[in-house]
Amino acid sequence: MPKGDASKGELKTPSCRFCHGSNGIASQASYPNLAGQQQKYLYDSMLAYTNDMRIGPMATMMKGQLQNLTSQDIADIAAYYSEMK
Amino acid sequence: MPKGDASKGELKTPSCRFCHGSNGIASQASYPNLAGQQQKYLYDSMLAYTNDMRIGPMATMMKGQLQNLTSQDIADIAAYYSEMK
Repeated sequence: MPKGDASKGELKTPSCRFCHGSNGIASQASYPNLAGQQQKYLYDSMLAYTNDMRIGPMATMMKGQLQNLTSQDIADIAAYYSEMK
Repeated sequence: MPKGDASKGELKTPSCRFCHGSNGIASQASYPNLAGQQQKYLYDSMLAYTNDMRIGPMATMMKGQLQNLTSQDIADIAAYYSEMK
């Protein structure tokens, strides 16, 4: 996992916020809260979507959201949410 | 999703605690925190493991952990962790 930079991650999260909340608390119970989640778990989960290791309508949506992000972007986003209180 | 009962859920979580913590905070960064997570998301995620909609070594481990649980058990566990502070 690349070293994540939370301040850079914040800039990459506009599309995350619609479902996961601007405070990392999900807007619907079907979506996970991200605030304070483990950094490595967040990183691995995002990669699982991009690598087709999570399947289903929500996974397809997440893969689309993540498709233009590099592993560094994903690490930065993971850092941002893991550091959020 | 069946209506979950957190007090019953607590009784069904001994095997969860080793990785996800007795307080719902994971013991390693590879594992997700569960405390305060959205109830429906927890339920859907556990079902995703049992239904092979999550793939990989961790998913295989989770499927094994969940294999003897009913959907009511899973709803109770989801209620327990979602209500945890």
